[in-house]
Amino acid sequence: MADARFFLKSSPLSLAQIAGRIGAELLSAEDGDYVVSDVAALDVAGDDHLSFLDNKKYKDQFAVTKAGACIVHPDMVDLAPANVRLLVSKTPYKSYALAAQAFYPEQRPEPSISQMVSIHPSAKIGEGVHISDFVTIGEDAVIGNHVWIESHVSIGAGVELADGVRIGNHATISHAMIGRGSRVYPGVRIGQDGFGFAIDPSGFVKVPQLGRVIIGDMVEIGANTAIDRGASGDTVIGSGSWIDNLVQIAHNVKIGRACVIVAQTGIAGSTELGDFVVLAGQVGVAGHLKIGSMAKVAAKSGVTKDIPPKEEWMGYPAMPMKKYLRQSVYLSKATERKKEGTNS
Amino acid sequence: MADARFFLKSSPLSLAQIAGRIGAELLSAEDGDYVVSDVAALDVAGDDHLSFLDNKKYKDQFAVTKAGACIVHPDMVDLAPANVRLLVSKTPYKSYALAAQAFYPEQRPEPSISQMVSIHPSAKIGEGVHISDFVTIGEDAVIGNHVWIESHVSIGAGVELADGVRIGNHATISHAMIGRGSRVYPGVRIGQDGFGFAIDPSGFVKVPQLGRVIIGDMVEIGANTAIDRGASGDTVIGSGSWIDNLVQIAHNVKIGRACVIVAQTGIAGSTELGDFVVLAGQVGVAGHLKIGSMAKVAAKSGVTKDIPPKEEWMGYPAMPMKKYLRQSVYLSKATERKKEGTNS
Amino acid sequence: MADARFFLKSSPLSLAQIAGRIGAELLSAEDGDYVVSDVAALDVAGDDHLSFLDNKKYKDQFAVTKAGACIVHPDMVDLAPANVRLLVSKTPYKSYALAAQAFYPEQRPEPSISQMVSIHPSAKIGEGVHISDFVTIGEDAVIGNHVWIESHVSIGAGVELADGVRIGNHATISHAMIGRGSRVYPGVRIGQDGFGFAIDPSGFVKVPQLGRVIIGDMVEIGANTAIDRGASGDTVIGSGSWIDNLVQIAHNVKIGRACVIVAQTGIAGSTELGDFVVLAGQVGVAGHLKIGSMAKVAAKSGVTKDIPPKEEWMGYPAMPMKKYLRQSVYLSKATERKKEGTNS
Repeated sequence: MADARFFLKSSPLSLAQIAGRIGAELLSAEDGDYVVSDVAALDVAGDDHLSFLDNKKYKDQFAVTKAGACIVHPDMVDLAPANVRLLVSKTPYKSYALAAQAFYPEQRPEPSISQMVSIHPSAKIGEGVHISDFVTIGEDAVIGNHVWIESHVSIGAGVELADGVRIGNHATISHAMIGRGSRVYPGVRIGQDGFGFAIDPSGFVKVPQLGRVIIGDMVEIGANTAIDRGASGDTVIGSGSWIDNLVQIAHNVKIGRACVIVAQTGIAGSTELGDFVVLAGQVGVAGHLKIGSMAKVAAKSGVTKDIPPKEEWMGYPAMPMKKYLRQSVYLSKATERKKEGTNS
Repeated sequence: MADARFFLKSSPLSLAQIAGRIGAELLSAEDGDYVVSDVAALDVAGDDHLSFLDNKKYKDQFAVTKAGACIVHPDMVDLAPANVRLLVSKTPYKSYALAAQAFYPEQRPEPSISQMVSIHPSAKIGEGVHISDFVTIGEDAVIGNHVWIESHVSIGAGVELADGVRIGNHATISHAMIGRGSRVYPGVRIGQDGFGFAIDPSGFVKVPQLGRVIIGDMVEIGANTAIDRGASGDTVIGSGSWIDNLVQIAHNVKIGRACVIVAQTGIAGSTELGDFVVLAGQVGVAGHLKIGSMAKVAAKSGVTKDIPPKEEWMGYPAMPMKKYLRQSVYLSKATERKKEGTNS
Repeated sequence: MADARFFLKSSPLSLAQIAGRIGAELLSAEDGDYVVSDVAALDVAGDDHLSFLDNKKYKDQFAVTKAGACIVHPDMVDLAPANVRLLVSKTPYKSYALAAQAFYPEQRPEPSISQMVSIHPSAKIGEGVHISDFVTIGEDAVIGNHVWIESHVSIGAGVELADGVRIGNHATISHAMIGRGSRVYPGVRIGQDGFGFAIDPSGFVKVPQLGRVIIGDMVEIGANTAIDRGASGDTVIGSGSWIDNLVQIAHNVKIGRACVIVAQTGIAGSTELGDFVVLAGQVGVAGHLKIGSMAKVAAKSGVTKDIPPKEEWMGYPAMPMKKYLRQSVYLSKATERKKEGTNS
């Protein structure tokens, strides 16, 4: 269903071929030879498409889908309409992701280096790189193999990009080392000075920002996000973490492995996140805090205290989610009682 | 009053000429020959300037203004000082806008294409375009007539810009079609992959983002805003909508016609807005919601439920505004009673 | 301790030399000849390093630090371990900043103008400037002495940059005058049209934005921040103010001297801040308000009223901080009482 102007589709696949690639099982083995040519959403899929049901919100669409085949959780099999061939997976969204990757493998451009670039002669450039127009690469920068640098990017002196890194258009990277396979989206700012100064009546005194930004492997950093370098020591993003658009990460923040930081969240200086932490959208976290591994913070919360591992917090100031919800319910009921004149 | 280094002013106009252009009526017909040479704010206007009163907050300035003429609502006529000629309009701010346009029509540069650009030979370039320095335009892109592309812009392969589109400096556009007369401000990111992945203990699995961004006619998109392309299906911005700076619009969001999205607001994936919806600044809207036409959401609210058409909501989580305000009043009063030791 | 790939360190200094430069006194005069070669954080410093204690949170690190010398407040001297030489300062963070500047003075590149630029012949370029690759400078722009313009910057027609200004990569500057020594970080957008239009059933009517952005001396503006130009009159940022990343400043905002605006804060149109105002992270301030000098607003607050000078406010809608905290405590206690069945 993807627009051929923008996406290149692979050949059709049988459901048997797909099942093997995506960790799913055919509900009926006889469907294995059925061929689909694409993935599509439930409401627009046709009989040569593979779709999926992951969110119960869409079960009504599922009931009337025209999809030829569908990936579903074992618990949802009973909701399926008769006409749809089922691929059963305990992780239907992951299975869908793998199926979509099979039809639409990432397109990387051929290796080449544009003539309209400014690359310092001392920079080391790996094999198989693609460097697009109007890119600048500074002194002693190290660009790994198969790195893809889109147009208008600035790579500062000494920066290291490991193998397979992709840097999106108009990104600015300085004072940073970026690990294998990580991807930086357009307009990201990495490595600029943090917001560090001493307040003084005669004018603020700038504190030199002497650290770096260290980004692990397979990290994604969303469009127009800003990650300041450390003031003393480094700002660190752990391997496998995904950061969304327009996020602010201040100096000396440490983010663990496989964290998820949703759009427009901000993390103040020196705060540390464990592994598998989730910060939903527009969260703010104050400085010098510790957020334990597997903790989750609800959207728009303002975190002012340490959060123990595995807890779910919410609110402003943030507190354990259950406590916050009790307060919301109490306030709502107390207000309504008052309104009705039955003030207790 | 505008700085001539930045703005080119047209010739002086009589109040009669202006009245005809801006949908206003002269309070006294004999003022029709009075000539003004510019627009200016109430507090700095002189006798050859046209000013306006739209916000009652400024009625004290109105009472002492030195402006030669002023646009006012019929209800405000009585507040006018004796020396000021009045142009009466039921929509004084709109009338002022039209008057300011008359003195300062948009300046478009002469058609020309810089030599310092990288335009793929397969791209189709319309008539009368202006393409500034260090622009890149990808394979099979389609650039309409009278399009204006400012410096350092990246237009990706297959992108279509309709007639009269203006793209601001350093913007990145991929996987997108943009309608007639729409304007994209500097640093905007349109069409990058949405934040789509399946969580998995062995590492998150990326979900290919196979949709586009479809932007209607006469849309404005503010500086450093990010609009991700659809995951499956498109992200859509309806004609006539205005989006401010630093806004985040996630994959598969649908925004109707003539919506207003104020700065730093974020809309999560697959949420749909009707027409004429207003989201004030720093609002967050969760994913998979429906916000009805003409609904309004107060600044900083966090929306977690569908909002019916025409309702005004506020709070975190957002609720009907009256309910939110009652809760605020209740909490304030109950706290003060407690403080005074008269706990009820 | 800074990575030599990114930072150039000066020669070692004796504690006597350092004390004279940073406004501190040696606790023991005999330590004056002791030489240190660098600054470092308490937990990583060795015996040839100078460290500092400013935040009591780190006093346990202080107690076991291996630093050769440390800057401390007079009140903290007693907490010092025996091995550490002490430089006593009433402003230890400022003193540290000055010490770090002594070891790591700002590196400015040699004066030079890249060949790969587009500079309008009418632009005036001062002495000793550094202009990097792919920069554009428009008609009649005025670039002062010793200005440093990093790669991919766009300087619009008529813009004036005073002596010593530094503009970061990919910044867009139009309709603006920037004062001496000010620094603009990567991806900043200054001078674009504000969000001004008259709502009208037949389509919004754009209000021409006829003002400028006037930035004082020694101002810092963080990465990806957006500052719109005035609609009529100017948007003004006072000298010595520091603005963090991803901040939104709307048309006609006036910010006084030495204000601090932390990341992701937004200020709506025509609001005025006095001097020394602090807005913490993710604050929102509505339009047409006055925030008095030395007022402070806590992170994530939503300001909807004027704030008198020197007050501390918090909440949404924001109120005096003490009132907000009382309400938070009341709500928490009332909810817990209710939960325990002792509803009063």
